[in-house]
Amino acid sequence: MYQFFVKSSQIQGTRVVITGNDVNHMKNVLRLKPGEEIAVRCGVDDKEYRCGIEEYTKDQVICSLRFVREEGVELPSKIYLFQCLPKADKMELIVQKAVELGVHEIVPVAARRCVVKLDEKKAQAKVNRWQGIAEAAAKQCRRGVIPAVKMPMTMKEALSYAEGMDVRLLPYELSQEDMAQTRKIIEGIGPGKSVAVFIGPEGGFEEGEVEMALAVDVTPVTLGRRILRTETAGLVVLSWLMYHLE
Amino acid sequence: MYQFFVKSSQIQGTRVVITGNDVNHMKNVLRLKPGEEIAVRCGVDDKEYRCGIEEYTKDQVICSLRFVREEGVELPSKIYLFQCLPKADKMELIVQKAVELGVHEIVPVAARRCVVKLDEKKAQAKVNRWQGIAEAAAKQCRRGVIPAVKMPMTMKEALSYAEGMDVRLLPYELSQEDMAQTRKIIEGIGPGKSVAVFIGPEGGFEEGEVEMALAVDVTPVTLGRRILRTETAGLVVLSWLMYHLE
Repeated sequence: MYQFFVKSSQIQGTRVVITGNDVNHMKNVLRLKPGEEIAVRCGVDDKEYRCGIEEYTKDQVICSLRFVREEGVELPSKIYLFQCLPKADKMELIVQKAVELGVHEIVPVAARRCVVKLDEKKAQAKVNRWQGIAEAAAKQCRRGVIPAVKMPMTMKEALSYAEGMDVRLLPYELSQEDMAQTRKIIEGIGPGKSVAVFIGPEGGFEEGEVEMALAVDVTPVTLGRRILRTETAGLVVLSWLMYHLE
Repeated sequence: MYQFFVKSSQIQGTRVVITGNDVNHMKNVLRLKPGEEIAVRCGVDDKEYRCGIEEYTKDQVICSLRFVREEGVELPSKIYLFQCLPKADKMELIVQKAVELGVHEIVPVAARRCVVKLDEKKAQAKVNRWQGIAEAAAKQCRRGVIPAVKMPMTMKEALSYAEGMDVRLLPYELSQEDMAQTRKIIEGIGPGKSVAVFIGPEGGFEEGEVEMALAVDVTPVTLGRRILRTETAGLVVLSWLMYHLE
């Protein structure tokens, strides 16, 4: 079944109205006919609105609500991925995969060793693009919530943003933690806890950045004995959290 | 430190000889000087040979062995990824990431719903390319072993190849197993056990293929409540196995 995202205001009692690019896509690409069933979500909660297509107007698809499901496809914890800006278009892969793995929010971080530098204007364009990728991925893997991609922050800003989160993890190569300890830390995360994960750039975090994180009690963890690329590291931690939490 | 792969025959007592493309790379790209230390591996075991560069000849780098480390970067179990051929160049990403995550061998599988069809000649060219990617990834993440990429098999051949393996897992959407059961299955895998993981193509396995696998006691598992893309699914299972085994 195909899934579409709408604004809350487009769900009006038992009438659901689809607008925008989806109209052409449904009519001319997917060729969905009146009577066929689709899944509609608002992108803000875990509810799935199952609708039947009633009719196509010039720029709308009018649907009728059949029933609402609380599917529970979301993880019981909110996971925030603080991803230092990687080279080239790797961030696109990271956003897509993080959404599939159940991330709640993605915060690009401009760490000191990041090769990519973004000014305000460039950053906004990139964030728009990444947000689009997050939405497409959420649609494809049938998430209930579209994870937000925030504007890039410095490491200091990111640490301050993560201040109130219940668990804050910093995987890095020189971590003294071994895998058994890392497992213990992850298994200690109860459902409902918010989790921040800080992933360094290609060259790793600078010592000063690691110290800054440790000073505010961020927990160092290991990712095993092989050196992982920056785009792999976050996906591994997200896989572990999903394994433990779901 | 830079790491290079050689054939066993190139380690002659305390003299280690590097040949081929690495010679130019070391001399003119990395500009390594006599006296500098490098890591050399055979690609077949977990031993790291630490060497000092002695001299460059026309087509060789002569090094002297300083000491041998048994690093233990390999997982204590051999993991075989049976990956149904994905569309476009996704297999390249899968090979790279699987090597980072500690896979032992990668077997491309031509399942019925695979869009990509490879004849003998094309398959050989692809496998050569994937093997090159596996070697580069092993170098980059400092693995001791270069995972082999096999020639594509049908699902029937793949099941027969995996017959003797200790644990054989088939993640698929319609699996009745929930996450708690899946965790129990993974936690039951002891070190030293060989593990086969079967990942379907974009359209999923055909019912007949799933039945064929279940008939030979392959264990179905779930990957959670979100639908994962084929290139994500294997990486998630490998992350879980690494989490449990390392």
